Amino acid sequence: MRFSKQIEFVRRLVHAKARPKLVHALEKLGPLQSSRILKQLEESDRQLFFELLIPHALLDKILMELPENSLTEILLSLSESQLTTLLYGMPTDMAWSFLQHLPLEEQNTILERLPQDQRDKIAMVSQFPKDSCGEIMHPEVMSVRISVSVEIAIQTVRKSDPHLKVFYLYVVDDEGHLLGTVPLRSLIREDPANLVSQVMIPNPIAVEALQPRRKAAQLVAQNKLLAVPVVDETHHLLGVITVDDVIDIVQEEATEEMYHLAGLSKDDGIFAPWLKTVRKRLAWMSINLFTAFLAAWVVGLFQESISKVVALAIFMPVVAGMGGNGGTQALTVMTRALALGEVSGREVWRAMGKEIFVGGSVGLFTGFVTGLIAWMWKGNFYLGLVLWLAMMLNMMIAGFAGSIIPMTLRAFRLDPALGSGVIVTTFTDVCGFMSFLGLATLFLKYLV
Amino acid sequence: MRFSKQIEFVRRLVHAKARPKLVHALEKLGPLQSSRILKQLEESDRQLFFELLIPHALLDKILMELPENSLTEILLSLSESQLTTLLYGMPTDMAWSFLQHLPLEEQNTILERLPQDQRDKIAMVSQFPKDSCGEIMHPEVMSVRISVSVEIAIQTVRKSDPHLKVFYLYVVDDEGHLLGTVPLRSLIREDPANLVSQVMIPNPIAVEALQPRRKAAQLVAQNKLLAVPVVDETHHLLGVITVDDVIDIVQEEATEEMYHLAGLSKDDGIFAPWLKTVRKRLAWMSINLFTAFLAAWVVGLFQESISKVVALAIFMPVVAGMGGNGGTQALTVMTRALALGEVSGREVWRAMGKEIFVGGSVGLFTGFVTGLIAWMWKGNFYLGLVLWLAMMLNMMIAGFAGSIIPMTLRAFRLDPALGSGVIVTTFTDVCGFMSFLGLATLFLKYLV
Repeated sequence: MRFSKQIEFVRRLVHAKARPKLVHALEKLGPLQSSRILKQLEESDRQLFFELLIPHALLDKILMELPENSLTEILLSLSESQLTTLLYGMPTDMAWSFLQHLPLEEQNTILERLPQDQRDKIAMVSQFPKDSCGEIMHPEVMSVRISVSVEIAIQTVRKSDPHLKVFYLYVVDDEGHLLGTVPLRSLIREDPANLVSQVMIPNPIAVEALQPRRKAAQLVAQNKLLAVPVVDETHHLLGVITVDDVIDIVQEEATEEMYHLAGLSKDDGIFAPWLKTVRKRLAWMSINLFTAFLAAWVVGLFQESISKVVALAIFMPVVAGMGGNGGTQALTVMTRALALGEVSGREVWRAMGKEIFVGGSVGLFTGFVTGLIAWMWKGNFYLGLVLWLAMMLNMMIAGFAGSIIPMTLRAFRLDPALGSGVIVTTFTDVCGFMSFLGLATLFLKYLV
Repeated sequence: MRFSKQIEFVRRLVHAKARPKLVHALEKLGPLQSSRILKQLEESDRQLFFELLIPHALLDKILMELPENSLTEILLSLSESQLTTLLYGMPTDMAWSFLQHLPLEEQNTILERLPQDQRDKIAMVSQFPKDSCGEIMHPEVMSVRISVSVEIAIQTVRKSDPHLKVFYLYVVDDEGHLLGTVPLRSLIREDPANLVSQVMIPNPIAVEALQPRRKAAQLVAQNKLLAVPVVDETHHLLGVITVDDVIDIVQEEATEEMYHLAGLSKDDGIFAPWLKTVRKRLAWMSINLFTAFLAAWVVGLFQESISKVVALAIFMPVVAGMGGNGGTQALTVMTRALALGEVSGREVWRAMGKEIFVGGSVGLFTGFVTGLIAWMWKGNFYLGLVLWLAMMLNMMIAGFAGSIIPMTLRAFRLDPALGSGVIVTTFTDVCGFMSFLGLATLFLKYLV
């Protein structure tokens, strides 16, 4: 079925107020496709859509798939009572991420309408810094005292909210310190008469609430866990981060890395308002403009050589372009390796050595070809020689710059991807023009 | 503890053959850090390390964290009997990914030593294409007939291999067609006397074995599943892809996307052999060289203008640099949105319109500043005007090229990131020089 047909189909079900059929259709389409349809619905149809589906767990999933800006727009279009019904009983992490899209005043009004218990949980996660483990955790964590039997533990799971995601049962002491964990499957397998202290895995892997969410993602991914418990500084159990959150974290961190490499801010997505995007990019492109003038200034130094041998201006883009792309390649390899934790200690120096070697080798070949073409085109052997040397040199510098810049940013505990792209191409532009025009000036009498 | 101390500590435990202490230490360090230490151990220490740890599930996790090239090196250093012991009883997806690092002959020798059952499972996944759902699935899937009771289902789970990752119990008919799924937690909650047909979720989300692994990752991520069943064309249950595999897939797909944007091949990692890297990059940089000559050729068209007004050569890098970076930004936003499935249908045209508008606006401002500086520096108003117009035009082209190129690649069912970076900068170089030098030639009598 084509997209326009799908929209029409959903619109008809909405108008017919056929709730079960609508739910079935949306389940078939999946949350992502449903969210696309929701975006395309007109305001009045959307209102009907929400009247039919609030509250429904399926709607939560659909809303989660919306791009940030559409989500804000849609949440703002809902009435306070609709919002309250939507958020009522919703998992804390989701409720908190939705609430943040609303103005502070409305946040408070809705919070007051929610049950005390839910309000407390939201208050708890909201106190932690953005993108910390504490902020994204689920405070709904299932735990039992260490003194109970497996039998009691099983009953605890049975009695729990059926919508709660449970992968592990956590074992705590009387003060709530985390002591161990029991995978759900063990509960099925173990003798109910045993004590949980006998079947638990002691000293489980945990994260502290103030650590960045990246840390939780790494632990879950590397240890193939389904969830990681979140504790405070004194090891009290506060909540849990589950594997489905980890997939979102990995996805978002990758996006952020790519955006930073290109000098974009992470909220400059495809659906960000046009003027906001212009403002964000202007800031960055002003820095870029400054660095471009550095390159222009270098060219200006050799103005006289260019006025004598105009062919130099023709080959400038070749030297700069090849250097820029070579540098970007080295940069991408190094940034990704740092982000994935693939490289450590003295290995980074070896990796840098490799990038310089690779750059030099690639420059040796491509510079030779360029030099040959220039020699034949312009009939001057020395022009070819200068190009060859300059390109080899610039490609080595590209390998060096592409690896040293993310390493340096990391050493200062900054994101290695932070705007590295522009810095690297500035480096290769400046050094490329310097080496090419500098060598040309040295050999000037053979070039004229 | 510093890294060198950690290595020394592990080395001492290995020499003392203190297996339990070594296991404990490695568990503390985590699989990633342990893999780094393993890489740093000398050949003889490594052999001792393996003698102590083969077989151990912890070792599997450590090996999985090694970069591809180190893993190959280490696997090749193991004896056939060590490899057999390592692979014996290992989950199929892991065993298959390890086997692929060995020469075909050794693969067969080791396969023959493995139990028939395991050999069959490996043969099954190895028949599917690389990176398909069938190739990465676990054929060890727990299923029950639709006619059994919850009681029997619970017993099936109890009797299963305790190392098996089980999240759902799958329900099949007598021919093995997938009919439904029962989350493990439901088994704890439901009355044992019920039939699984009463408690199962019918028609569960599934992938076909020949679909790309990306599809499985999308379904798991969007529907917040713990696993997705893999079926053949006639809906027979073949295996399962679990959420921990999905994290790896998301990670690897992101790396591939970044690599493709920079014109790198995915196996050109930081630890790839130096000469292999040179060979891989040379291929790509040769294309890049060709495109750079396109830009050079455009500059050559305006040789005469440059020889009359050398200042033009000075501002060439500014026009090209700003355009290149603007184009890369548009490209990154569009590629990422396509990869994440954020944009669909007619929205892509709107997104392209936005990028052209944003490019033009940024060009309007930065071009104005550039023009002003050029006017004051070189004392020629018309030089400033030409720069302003050229930069505005080129930034609009950058927005256009940055969005149309990934869209076109996607339309031909190619990876939108495939080498887009170089194509976009070629576009902005060629168009930038064309507009700047072209306009300058038109206004030439005012510039001299």
